[in-house]
Amino acid sequence: MAQDSIKLPNYLFARLRQLGIQSIFGVPGDYNLRLLDYVEPSGLHWVGNCNELNAAYAADGYARINGLGALITTFGVGELSAINGIAGANAEKAPVIHIVGTPSRALQDSRAMVHHTFADGEYGRFAAMHAHITVAQANLTDPRTAAEQIDWALQQALVKSRPVYIQLPDDMVDVAISSTRLDTPISIPSAPSPKHEEFLMTRILDRMYLAKRPMIFVDGETRPLKIIGQAEELVQRTGWPTWTSGFGKGLVNEQLDNVYGFYFAGYGDEQSKKYFDSADLALVLGPHYTNTNTQGYTTIPNKEASISFTESSVHIGNDIYRDISIRQFLTHLLQRMDPTCISTVDSAPPKPILDISHIKDSDLITQEGFYRFVNRLFSEGDIVLTETGTASYGGREFVLPPNTRTFAAITWLSIGYMLPATLGAALAQQETSRTGATGNVKRRAFLFIGDGSLQMTVQEISTIIREKLDVTIFILNNAGYTIERAIHGRKQAYNDITSWRHLQALSFFGATDQDAAQNNFSARTYGDLEQVLQSEPIRKGSGLRVVEVYMDREDCQGLLKTLMQQQIAGESAGVES
Amino acid sequence: MAQDSIKLPNYLFARLRQLGIQSIFGVPGDYNLRLLDYVEPSGLHWVGNCNELNAAYAADGYARINGLGALITTFGVGELSAINGIAGANAEKAPVIHIVGTPSRALQDSRAMVHHTFADGEYGRFAAMHAHITVAQANLTDPRTAAEQIDWALQQALVKSRPVYIQLPDDMVDVAISSTRLDTPISIPSAPSPKHEEFLMTRILDRMYLAKRPMIFVDGETRPLKIIGQAEELVQRTGWPTWTSGFGKGLVNEQLDNVYGFYFAGYGDEQSKKYFDSADLALVLGPHYTNTNTQGYTTIPNKEASISFTESSVHIGNDIYRDISIRQFLTHLLQRMDPTCISTVDSAPPKPILDISHIKDSDLITQEGFYRFVNRLFSEGDIVLTETGTASYGGREFVLPPNTRTFAAITWLSIGYMLPATLGAALAQQETSRTGATGNVKRRAFLFIGDGSLQMTVQEISTIIREKLDVTIFILNNAGYTIERAIHGRKQAYNDITSWRHLQALSFFGATDQDAAQNNFSARTYGDLEQVLQSEPIRKGSGLRVVEVYMDREDCQGLLKTLMQQQIAGESAGVES
Repeated sequence: MAQDSIKLPNYLFARLRQLGIQSIFGVPGDYNLRLLDYVEPSGLHWVGNCNELNAAYAADGYARINGLGALITTFGVGELSAINGIAGANAEKAPVIHIVGTPSRALQDSRAMVHHTFADGEYGRFAAMHAHITVAQANLTDPRTAAEQIDWALQQALVKSRPVYIQLPDDMVDVAISSTRLDTPISIPSAPSPKHEEFLMTRILDRMYLAKRPMIFVDGETRPLKIIGQAEELVQRTGWPTWTSGFGKGLVNEQLDNVYGFYFAGYGDEQSKKYFDSADLALVLGPHYTNTNTQGYTTIPNKEASISFTESSVHIGNDIYRDISIRQFLTHLLQRMDPTCISTVDSAPPKPILDISHIKDSDLITQEGFYRFVNRLFSEGDIVLTETGTASYGGREFVLPPNTRTFAAITWLSIGYMLPATLGAALAQQETSRTGATGNVKRRAFLFIGDGSLQMTVQEISTIIREKLDVTIFILNNAGYTIERAIHGRKQAYNDITSWRHLQALSFFGATDQDAAQNNFSARTYGDLEQVLQSEPIRKGSGLRVVEVYMDREDCQGLLKTLMQQQIAGESAGVES
Repeated sequence: MAQDSIKLPNYLFARLRQLGIQSIFGVPGDYNLRLLDYVEPSGLHWVGNCNELNAAYAADGYARINGLGALITTFGVGELSAINGIAGANAEKAPVIHIVGTPSRALQDSRAMVHHTFADGEYGRFAAMHAHITVAQANLTDPRTAAEQIDWALQQALVKSRPVYIQLPDDMVDVAISSTRLDTPISIPSAPSPKHEEFLMTRILDRMYLAKRPMIFVDGETRPLKIIGQAEELVQRTGWPTWTSGFGKGLVNEQLDNVYGFYFAGYGDEQSKKYFDSADLALVLGPHYTNTNTQGYTTIPNKEASISFTESSVHIGNDIYRDISIRQFLTHLLQRMDPTCISTVDSAPPKPILDISHIKDSDLITQEGFYRFVNRLFSEGDIVLTETGTASYGGREFVLPPNTRTFAAITWLSIGYMLPATLGAALAQQETSRTGATGNVKRRAFLFIGDGSLQMTVQEISTIIREKLDVTIFILNNAGYTIERAIHGRKQAYNDITSWRHLQALSFFGATDQDAAQNNFSARTYGDLEQVLQSEPIRKGSGLRVVEVYMDREDCQGLLKTLMQQQIAGESAGVES
């Protein structure tokens, strides 16, 4: 092989390494086996998942912490099993590289009737399906253009922070391509600043200097915009009251005096709502205004007061300033901002306190108290994950330590997502720790998940065990889909599930005898829960620990509680629910 | 409500009932909850699955036994999780009705940014994706046309024996439509016989009367062609040597003297191969000539000798006679056939015998002996299912009792399919039994599945338990994906899996204490296995039983063994594998 040549898989994997990927997820299949031979020799860690949907979820979780994630599946059966996970990454802007091993060019060209097809010679369907849910697609059939195709796809994943799709035919695995492009790093390209940028800067600074009741709203697209650092600096330097959405939660330090965490609107503190509603300026970072991220559109700052920083534009009232590099613009804004002109807010609402003084040991655990009760578990550097359901509603109440990341599903809301995503996120976190970027902090992950969601993807527990990740799972046992019960069908059997013996999960899924014996806990009362939190394995243990927490089948909070109560009222009024 | 009006869901479910569906699979989600309210009141049994892919697999297994299956998922997250199962049903012709609860028309029309979308107002993507893998799509947005759309979609599922896709917006659940169409049953339409049909009949009968070395090949599309009865009659009345493909296995009574079961070509009995290769007439029913159903194209009868009955045409050499109703044509052929003109075959090969005389109690269990050893378990009316992997290869050797159905994945080959498919097939079988159609035979299902495949969809064990189905699962523990090891990467870690404690599955997934204690077995030697087969719970028990059978990680048979040996030879010759 000539010096400037490289085998195609080595090129692809070298690019992934350059972009910070250390592990890759997936499942072997006969069209990707030869490709898999190149994974570990490229310095990537291969994480074999139990199935492909779980692999996609894991790659998504990994991407949200690491900035980029990847998985490898096989043609047809594998890639379609993963497709819902890829769609979720698209909806919530997790840049995931979906690499698919496909039949050889000879088979495709001859329209051979092979397995993993519909036996009609048509090989293009699955790529066409992926075009609906990914922002770039590449089919690497030509050694002359393969490197450029890879680079384009990867760059698109970075630029749009969304998934891309790369097909690699089985016989292309051994093909040599030029390696010269590897010397040029892949990065997000820039464009010259538009002429309206200076005007915009002045307009925003003027508004900031004049504001009397200013606020900041950190929404979830702050992460894909890569402005987490700028957001934190803005919050700290202005000292302005700051709230987040569910999607934005954990992207800004909740220990700061002016950070109030999740904005509950009508379900939270009245003084907060009063300030929020009457703000004369709301700097909105990375807005993502879906029904579920805005509590039915009730948590959106007033449009008249808002200056919103979106993917590549700034919105002020009805004015849209396009083609702004938000990250660079905010950096300049922070440099230009005169701290002496920023007014101190004297009408800021008091910061709510997580009160647990009313809770007695003998009380049964409820949604109302549970999250505030376990909040003390968390310490700097942890990851806290809440699965769709009562857990994602409840987890909004957490007050997190600095440098703690959290995420919940927000818009895609595919139940089953969070357990494999925890695998991915915890692995990314552990790798960051290994490379020393953030010091020697002990890095742990906490997952809060309902018993219904758990059933979707439960087998990935075995991969968490195999990868020796430090994860504590709280399984909320409320005998089914309580979030659905709140929405509709409170008493319907279709919202029930089969009851599992959750505390046998560790043993069944392959933990060591010792771990299977000592890492299981359950709690019905707060007294039980206190004992669990004080136990040695939870405080100082390692590996996977499982805590089963029993709650009432109709217990829920906030909007869900309102919906549940509306159903009950409707029933007693004889209304068909 | 006027007398000739009916609520839309009631219409849809009435149609499913008319077509023989008794149970419907799926997972609740907030866009389908109101629809689910109508399921059980319509007389359908709701089977809540652990996830949507499993629901699709279960509906597919149900369809293969019952003739039609159905599942209900929710918009986006649910339907995309199921999509690989729908694609498999398309590849292997299982008519599955995929019903999706979608957001209300108001939300869709206003392009609202709701959950389970990409927050861009586009609601059409998932239907577009399904158009690639289903034969009809219907979006029920108009009460005037909804009934006709439903009827068309269901008819297409019957005609093409492939999946169809029906979207039902949340607000259409309460809408009344006309019920008058319900009086007209949905059936496969007929067309006038083409004028070449009589010529074709004579041509085929002439060939049959002249044949000296005739044979019959029953392939898997015999099932979707709905000619299982005709096939059996043809085989019985001619007495001609008959073989099946993997896809066709179990569609004809293997106890008949002239039925040889699966055709192994170069991996089986020499005399069979000699006869097969030199046949002067091969009546081929429902050919499905993919690489995996033809052992790499080696089991296809000679084209010159073949008369093939396909979806709607008959192929004789290079001549194609189109627009033939195969079922009707074969019925006429059997009526017209003069038994005195059918020559007796005196050169028929001897029927292979399942010899287990060489097996000793102390022998470790191997792929070579296992399937013939357990063969005696099966009795009339059972279902025997073999998952993709060594099990599907091994199960070809079974000699099944009459009225026993078997199926393996053949072309789609999505590992993980067979466990949920067993749920669906066993339920369909039990329902048939309940309705008395086949008397009071005790109906049992046997699943043979590798430990790797099991991990994909293991949670559906809990649904089998809940539905109280009589199922025995043989888990082949060979520490990973042995079929992949045979193909490539014999020693590669990516073909390994995490080791589970399989005998705890019943307990973990919610069996009663008694069942969890008495229904677990394991075997390493044939002596162990003999004891298992003789045990009370296996012979006379009920509910779910699990037998873990240990085999060597590289043990395989037939084509897989050849591939494994080629790898080993390549390794010792220094060839990169």
